[in-house]
Amino acid sequence: MSGSDALAAAESRIRAIPDYPQSGVVFRDVAPLIADGPSLRASVEAMLAPFAGGFDVVAGVEARGFLLAGVAAAISGVGILPVRKSGKLPRPAASEDYALEYDTATIEVQADVQEGSRVLLLDDVLATGGTLDAATALVRRIGLEPVGIAVLLELLGLGGRERLAPDIPVHAVFTA
Amino acid sequence: MSGSDALAAAESRIRAIPDYPQSGVVFRDVAPLIADGPSLRASVEAMLAPFAGGFDVVAGVEARGFLLAGVAAAISGVGILPVRKSGKLPRPAASEDYALEYDTATIEVQADVQEGSRVLLLDDVLATGGTLDAATALVRRIGLEPVGIAVLLELLGLGGRERLAPDIPVHAVFTA
Repeated sequence: MSGSDALAAAESRIRAIPDYPQSGVVFRDVAPLIADGPSLRASVEAMLAPFAGGFDVVAGVEARGFLLAGVAAAISGVGILPVRKSGKLPRPAASEDYALEYDTATIEVQADVQEGSRVLLLDDVLATGGTLDAATALVRRIGLEPVGIAVLLELLGLGGRERLAPDIPVHAVFTA
Repeated sequence: MSGSDALAAAESRIRAIPDYPQSGVVFRDVAPLIADGPSLRASVEAMLAPFAGGFDVVAGVEARGFLLAGVAAAISGVGILPVRKSGKLPRPAASEDYALEYDTATIEVQADVQEGSRVLLLDDVLATGGTLDAATALVRRIGLEPVGIAVLLELLGLGGRERLAPDIPVHAVFTA
């Protein structure tokens, strides 16, 4: 199977779930893609392709971003900086609040990556961009250099890409 | 660096945090190991070694288990079955309750892996074994075959290994 065939097969595994988590919303579930070895590999390779050789560590956003960050770390030979929900980390080095639709959330990181390292941020879905924007700020706050954002799937029409820092390239493998 | 040197370097990166999350407890923090590419790779290779060729999918336990499951999936060419905390999954196929010290917790999975598949369960730390025991039962419940449990670190003296199903081999790379 060629790379583009593998990607087409991967895309066909993204499951649309109508009216989840609420009426009128179509949830895009990437679990069937992640459950298939060749689809997972091809998709993460495609996430990394534009940034090859240009990063020292991957930052994965909890929780599905951790799955992709693990695959990306193994493919590219780097370590992982986990970006966690608040209250999960001992001795967080920095935290960042951001707005949700009716609430705020907080993410945190530890300081286990050498200052100045180039960080590629990874998550499964780019929706409104709130979490990835906060993660980018957080990475800067601890003295690291965000060099890109890569997601499996970008949900168009939610303004996510516009919310993200304009100086950081954003790459989505699939759109919906 | 030889394989055993890489593993020794990885082990030296496990950080002991006294009195976390409560007084008298020493928390073993694997974040510095996960942040280092060679340590992460060598550790996950060691987790997988006894099970090489004997599994079709890895199950990662939320959340740090997701990081290791991602690395393991890429190394071995398989997909991932995420074992999630309750309420995170659309259309969970099965759920399993288990006892915590003063509470109960619930984990859930979807049904995205072919029935009869052989599953290697992965987590970062084996402590009391409650979560991994429940994850094993959950995997069986959806018609998959658990063939092993691999963890980065086993905390001795908490009875974790005794709590797990006796017919499933358990492998820990490091102990503390």
